[in-house]
Amino acid sequence: MATSTPGDITGLAEIRALLAELPGPDEEAASAAAARQAELTKPAGALGRLERLAEWLAAWQGRHPPQLERPHAAVFAANHGVAVHGVSAYPTEVTAQMVQAFIDGKAAINQICGLIGAELRVYEMALDEPTRDFSEHEAMDDEDCARAMAYGMMAIEEGFDVYVLGEMGIGNTTSAAAICQALFDGRPEDWCGRGTGVSDNILGLKAEIVGRSVALHRDAMIDPFEVLRCVGGLEIAAIAGAILAARLARVPVVLDGFTSTAAAAVLYAADKRAIDHCVVGHLSAEQAHSRLVDRIGKKPLLDLEMRLGEGSGAATAVMLLKAACACHSGMATFSEAGVSGRAEPA
Amino acid sequence: MATSTPGDITGLAEIRALLAELPGPDEEAASAAAARQAELTKPAGALGRLERLAEWLAAWQGRHPPQLERPHAAVFAANHGVAVHGVSAYPTEVTAQMVQAFIDGKAAINQICGLIGAELRVYEMALDEPTRDFSEHEAMDDEDCARAMAYGMMAIEEGFDVYVLGEMGIGNTTSAAAICQALFDGRPEDWCGRGTGVSDNILGLKAEIVGRSVALHRDAMIDPFEVLRCVGGLEIAAIAGAILAARLARVPVVLDGFTSTAAAAVLYAADKRAIDHCVVGHLSAEQAHSRLVDRIGKKPLLDLEMRLGEGSGAATAVMLLKAACACHSGMATFSEAGVSGRAEPA
Repeated sequence: MATSTPGDITGLAEIRALLAELPGPDEEAASAAAARQAELTKPAGALGRLERLAEWLAAWQGRHPPQLERPHAAVFAANHGVAVHGVSAYPTEVTAQMVQAFIDGKAAINQICGLIGAELRVYEMALDEPTRDFSEHEAMDDEDCARAMAYGMMAIEEGFDVYVLGEMGIGNTTSAAAICQALFDGRPEDWCGRGTGVSDNILGLKAEIVGRSVALHRDAMIDPFEVLRCVGGLEIAAIAGAILAARLARVPVVLDGFTSTAAAAVLYAADKRAIDHCVVGHLSAEQAHSRLVDRIGKKPLLDLEMRLGEGSGAATAVMLLKAACACHSGMATFSEAGVSGRAEPA
Repeated sequence: MATSTPGDITGLAEIRALLAELPGPDEEAASAAAARQAELTKPAGALGRLERLAEWLAAWQGRHPPQLERPHAAVFAANHGVAVHGVSAYPTEVTAQMVQAFIDGKAAINQICGLIGAELRVYEMALDEPTRDFSEHEAMDDEDCARAMAYGMMAIEEGFDVYVLGEMGIGNTTSAAAICQALFDGRPEDWCGRGTGVSDNILGLKAEIVGRSVALHRDAMIDPFEVLRCVGGLEIAAIAGAILAARLARVPVVLDGFTSTAAAAVLYAADKRAIDHCVVGHLSAEQAHSRLVDRIGKKPLLDLEMRLGEGSGAATAVMLLKAACACHSGMATFSEAGVSGRAEPA
């Protein structure tokens, strides 16, 4: 994979170098998809976003027709030092308990992966070794952050049709809020939501911690990767790494909610083209997600007021990608079907 | 089925009488769904609309847990006398050609039904006998309209888990616009959209015809069923009948775009509770659809800028109902999974 394999990565400098090597879209596949789209038995544009999704998949899978037979979901789980402040409604041990539920096949993500025929893998990232409390220390040192990204990269294999990238980590919407505040400014309150459903009191505490932490690390956060290192989390770094590796492997990505999108925002802030192969699967009910997707120029596919994480919203959105591919490949063209064209000139 | 079987229906009076016999939701099944929802391993409400959909399905299927193994799509096709004015971008023969495409399995709805495992049936309604041009005459007489509704009722069988109700009919957004204008007032322009993609000129013609036709029939349109009779179409009447029959058969309904929703609006205008067992699958790009769903108090599940008809948006939304059922039935409860509850009191 490019100049270095994920296993060789020992520092963020190697990750930064990867950004320059990201392949662009396959214009030939995208053109072939657009040409076929125009011939299918429907008024031009009548399938709306399903048409554009088929073209996007072709561009980033690098083939026409695009396919969605083999989706894959990767869920990264980690713990956060900042959780010591009680920023979540749930105790830290829930991260490990939910990992066990994923393994047992009993969580929401398992059911949705079953529906879409996706393989699900859960990546447990040293749950008994959380990141440092970023309200007092940098969350990770350079090597830890780079290794977490490399770990995420290693989760990606060629041959899948799309990756769903999800997360589980008690406290991680606080980390995601701090990343957004550091990358995009605004008020800390704008980036903080209720996560698992915290009270007004804890919501206020979250915003206070985010504001204070970003101020504390301001001088160290000289680029987006330093933001990730100072106030991010292991699972967030892993998702960022997985996004990069998916680009190199020509596998499009479906992002999930606020935390998953915050990981992508780190890459976007470093290079606006770095997440062109990603779509945001759903608009989370976590209030800052709407602001975040606006900042990175993405329009979520679904808006179902979900706010669970686990990749659940993204996996649900894979159904739409399947519909896009099925229509694109299975519909007849006007000439095949013997259907008359427009009476009124377009 | 109630006092009369669809085959016995000979006039709209019998249809009106049916409205008084519609069963309400199964409160016991809905309560059981809500109780289980509260125990599943997720923060309360974190699955958003998927949670409410599971409860809604339980209420209207009359069972807990709700199921979505056997969806059924019924697409009604008819022609419209008003099409003689060139209100569509496509010629009238396209209705029959698209019916053939449905039968051949080559249209968008076929591909999406394949994905969701839905049986698809196409109901061709005397394509060579269009309704009368409602800009000059009442579109249907009482018996024709009642028989079209009864035909739609006969398409409904017990034992399916959900019905997708779609349509095909060149010119039918003009009929749907006239229905909306007659039921809800407003300016004709507000209810007219580009349908298959007409030019500004034809859009203006459409609005002019709608305004003139509604004025012409104002005195005859003494109730919503008279609106349907005077400016509706055969497939629109059939969908309205199918909605009623689905209620009686305890099968929830997924409505499609503007035309399908206009059929439901006739029933809503007659009795606001008559479409409580219906959800609007998607927000169509046909501009009047947004206004229409607001008027009938529905929030579409998807917003993908689709505007194809055929039931395509509704069938796509069935995937969300499947996700709702899969999560509801397949997830573990907190106690089963050994996951800790909230640390912070809710």
